Amino acid sequence: MINRLCIVGVGLIGGSLARALKSAGAVSEVVGYGRDVAQLQLAQELGVIDRFETDIAAALRGAAVVVVAVPVGAMEGVLRTMAPHLDAATIVTDVGSTKGSVVAAAERAFGTVPPRFVPGHPIAGTERSGVAASFAELYHKRRVILTPLPHTDPAAVTTVRGLWQAAGAEVVEMGVQHHDEVLAATSHLPHVLAYTLVDTLARMEEHTEIFRYAAGGFRDFTRIASSDPGMWHDICLANREAILKVLDRYSADLAAVRRAVECGDGAALLHTFGRAKKARDDFKQ
Amino acid sequence: MINRLCIVGVGLIGGSLARALKSAGAVSEVVGYGRDVAQLQLAQELGVIDRFETDIAAALRGAAVVVVAVPVGAMEGVLRTMAPHLDAATIVTDVGSTKGSVVAAAERAFGTVPPRFVPGHPIAGTERSGVAASFAELYHKRRVILTPLPHTDPAAVTTVRGLWQAAGAEVVEMGVQHHDEVLAATSHLPHVLAYTLVDTLARMEEHTEIFRYAAGGFRDFTRIASSDPGMWHDICLANREAILKVLDRYSADLAAVRRAVECGDGAALLHTFGRAKKARDDFKQ
Repeated sequence: MINRLCIVGVGLIGGSLARALKSAGAVSEVVGYGRDVAQLQLAQELGVIDRFETDIAAALRGAAVVVVAVPVGAMEGVLRTMAPHLDAATIVTDVGSTKGSVVAAAERAFGTVPPRFVPGHPIAGTERSGVAASFAELYHKRRVILTPLPHTDPAAVTTVRGLWQAAGAEVVEMGVQHHDEVLAATSHLPHVLAYTLVDTLARMEEHTEIFRYAAGGFRDFTRIASSDPGMWHDICLANREAILKVLDRYSADLAAVRRAVECGDGAALLHTFGRAKKARDDFKQ
Repeated sequence: MINRLCIVGVGLIGGSLARALKSAGAVSEVVGYGRDVAQLQLAQELGVIDRFETDIAAALRGAAVVVVAVPVGAMEGVLRTMAPHLDAATIVTDVGSTKGSVVAAAERAFGTVPPRFVPGHPIAGTERSGVAASFAELYHKRRVILTPLPHTDPAAVTTVRGLWQAAGAEVVEMGVQHHDEVLAATSHLPHVLAYTLVDTLARMEEHTEIFRYAAGGFRDFTRIASSDPGMWHDICLANREAILKVLDRYSADLAAVRRAVECGDGAALLHTFGRAKKARDDFKQ
């Protein structure tokens, strides 16, 4: 049981965690902090948080755990605001989609990353955003990756792990760089590809008609292009190197498929498509 | 009411049409024809067809309408088999995903495209295939595109239109080339991109672990990579030019996004992602 939990940034991610912990009875009081007072008021009305503060010192006061749930691009500024008011006993964790950039931001904000700072990332979300979209089941059976550093306090890791488990998630640990490479492949690159495709088609002259004849496959394929552009702008800048690496690999493979289409190399197409189908079918199970 | 309907190729597409027309009471008898006797037997057991023939002359005998529902790569061979046995009064339509290639195949098989041949394409399907996956509601509220030629018999178009409407679909007409360009953009290119992405990741050393941390967005984005590789191999070869055209446009746009990531050009990323989100959100409505 956590006595007082402070959520910095009460949107889809922070709000859903607060809801889950409240409904699990894992927290006594949830205090919200953020820049957008209307969102905080809405969060309080919805029962996601018990109260909110617009002063960071007041928000952090007496908090056992602070969850920083802001876009990765806002992370350093928020951590700098927190730094002068943070009790050394307070455990801090974040939910940023990129971990190298968050660790670097914490280093700059605090001098060194505090031992009780546990970088984390729940692999969950929807294309929606804002506290109104939050729900207690968001993390149910989802994976949460923690990337503690060598000097991170194991007790703090245990507390953060327990918090996510109480929200119904399965918690795993890995290195910061490994996290960023895996997520670049399965999350960041697909978002870049989906945004680019929808934009390419939208800019084609006949676009109204093009979308008119799109079917279910296209709808699924492009759903992630409805995600928050600001958040994905942040992620692309924050995980630049890992994204470029996997994007270049993908582009080379796409060029090979293009050559096969151009040359009418049916065997190559069948080989690539068949291998992909097998991998995708295995993934389903 | 169609007296006798012949379905050539009783899989997901042909089987679902047969089911829909039977449940709408729009057809008296459905005769199946195909290469795979086990599939035909299954189709009969499932009540999708009333009987089947493995001899094409017997299958076509007395049919008012023939629906050719085979992969586009098999189209020419099937039409050649049908040609000597086809009554001039019989209406033929197809469900091929590419229309230029089907018209060319009909030209080669029949000398000229018969006036009662109505090229068609239902914009519906799932990533599954085979008659066991067929269901009567597949075409409900989906669009079907007919691409009649200047010399196509208007009465035949009316009959085929009525058949799809009885299955619950909305029927539109457009030119062959326009169809192929629109579908290259909204269907063929997304399949190529999804297959390539899954294959790129599957070939990365750590692929088991990569897929392990994939979330819902990835699942939706790559669902179409479970589609039948043979069918998509056919489509890529059959609609080569239109696919290359839109693929090159996409690749140029992707290269621009790559440069923006590399240079940290946040404004460009935000612009592209924001425009894409708007287009995708509009499409949802």
